[in-house]
Amino acid sequence: MPNIEIAFSPSVFNHFEVENSVVVVVDILRATSVICTMFHNGVKEIIPVKSIEEAKEYKRKGYLVVAERNGKKLDFADFGNSPFYFTPETVSGKTVVYSTTNGTNAVTIGKSALDVLIGSFLNFTAIKDYLLEEDERNLLILCAGWKGKFSLEDSLFAGALASELIGSGKYSTICDSTQASMDLWSLAQNDLPNYLEKVAQRHRLKKLGLDDVINYCFTKDITDVIPVLKGDRLDALKR
Amino acid sequence: MPNIEIAFSPSVFNHFEVENSVVVVVDILRATSVICTMFHNGVKEIIPVKSIEEAKEYKRKGYLVVAERNGKKLDFADFGNSPFYFTPETVSGKTVVYSTTNGTNAVTIGKSALDVLIGSFLNFTAIKDYLLEEDERNLLILCAGWKGKFSLEDSLFAGALASELIGSGKYSTICDSTQASMDLWSLAQNDLPNYLEKVAQRHRLKKLGLDDVINYCFTKDITDVIPVLKGDRLDALKR
Repeated sequence: MPNIEIAFSPSVFNHFEVENSVVVVVDILRATSVICTMFHNGVKEIIPVKSIEEAKEYKRKGYLVVAERNGKKLDFADFGNSPFYFTPETVSGKTVVYSTTNGTNAVTIGKSALDVLIGSFLNFTAIKDYLLEEDERNLLILCAGWKGKFSLEDSLFAGALASELIGSGKYSTICDSTQASMDLWSLAQNDLPNYLEKVAQRHRLKKLGLDDVINYCFTKDITDVIPVLKGDRLDALKR
Repeated sequence: MPNIEIAFSPSVFNHFEVENSVVVVVDILRATSVICTMFHNGVKEIIPVKSIEEAKEYKRKGYLVVAERNGKKLDFADFGNSPFYFTPETVSGKTVVYSTTNGTNAVTIGKSALDVLIGSFLNFTAIKDYLLEEDERNLLILCAGWKGKFSLEDSLFAGALASELIGSGKYSTICDSTQASMDLWSLAQNDLPNYLEKVAQRHRLKKLGLDDVINYCFTKDITDVIPVLKGDRLDALKR
């Protein structure tokens, strides 16, 4: 039976064995929610880059660049990190270069796994069904966290996904992070708006006037697209 | 108001600023429970060492050496890691050299903080009262975890301690790890024996026939001693 583990941040990723696993990367507020939105609205591909210098280099070459640090758009970038910017008019058919505080780092670190998928509440059921129907490998859910640390919103998603996968009888776990995440999700799910008041990133975004995205980022199933890492680029999984 | 944060394992410790903080190191199963037991039974001092080589070197010099890896006593050591070995007859007045899979690593990593205290359920109220009555600094609770990863039993202790400190009105938190730990403790505390069935380390110890220590390690307040790091050695805090 395939096993589920959860890494609470990229800082602990190297303690997990992932050579034969599928990795689902999650950064609910906001990178993986933004990536799912872009693919839903027809982006051709996304190039995740770790450093600001790389993002600038792509900008000089004429690429459309989305870049933020600590929540704020970087001056040279075309867009900041709100999913609301990425309408079909903005991204359809385009290649987008993408660099954020936590999420794109998690995507690039995940590279050593066999397959890297991008998860968010926006494509929750698509990811779940894919893992239930088309995958037999061990699963690591890699949370982007906040600057190397644990974040509640990512572990809530991880707990929600793990609960459904284990509930199906196809997956099991012997991982304390997974037990904890499922328990946190069981506490939060029936009163999510209230529970989300605890999330530190909510308050960081509020200070910047960027917290209008929170309800959207916790909305389940607006899309059935599954972004997947192919080499150094994200593409939509073909099924 | 002093702030509380929780590091779920030594792997994330370097993401926290601790220069002016007090750090409470916790490894419930079993290192910090063993350390509290040794001081309760009159050990003179404990030298925590990270590597097996260092522990062997001390053994050659004639020290009493306690050393385990993956739960099992190392051949050259005088004792393995069960708190039940460390009666007054065994340790009173002695210097003990101590090396374990996770806990002693956490103690040595914590060194960069202003003060490092050793916490366990066995000295829970002593630690809590000390922090409430005699300390005004920010607090980081450093969980030893399991091989760099999150462990439930350490975060349950951290959540129990944080809940009481924040409940007192003297401390606050804006840390997601602290929120999560307090929620896990609130779920677990009313039915601890059942909740502990989830803990992966419980099953690791059971396989080795070493799970007889679990109830003991979750017993509150058998001692009021607070072990503290002084240079490279652990001593009892004088009050």
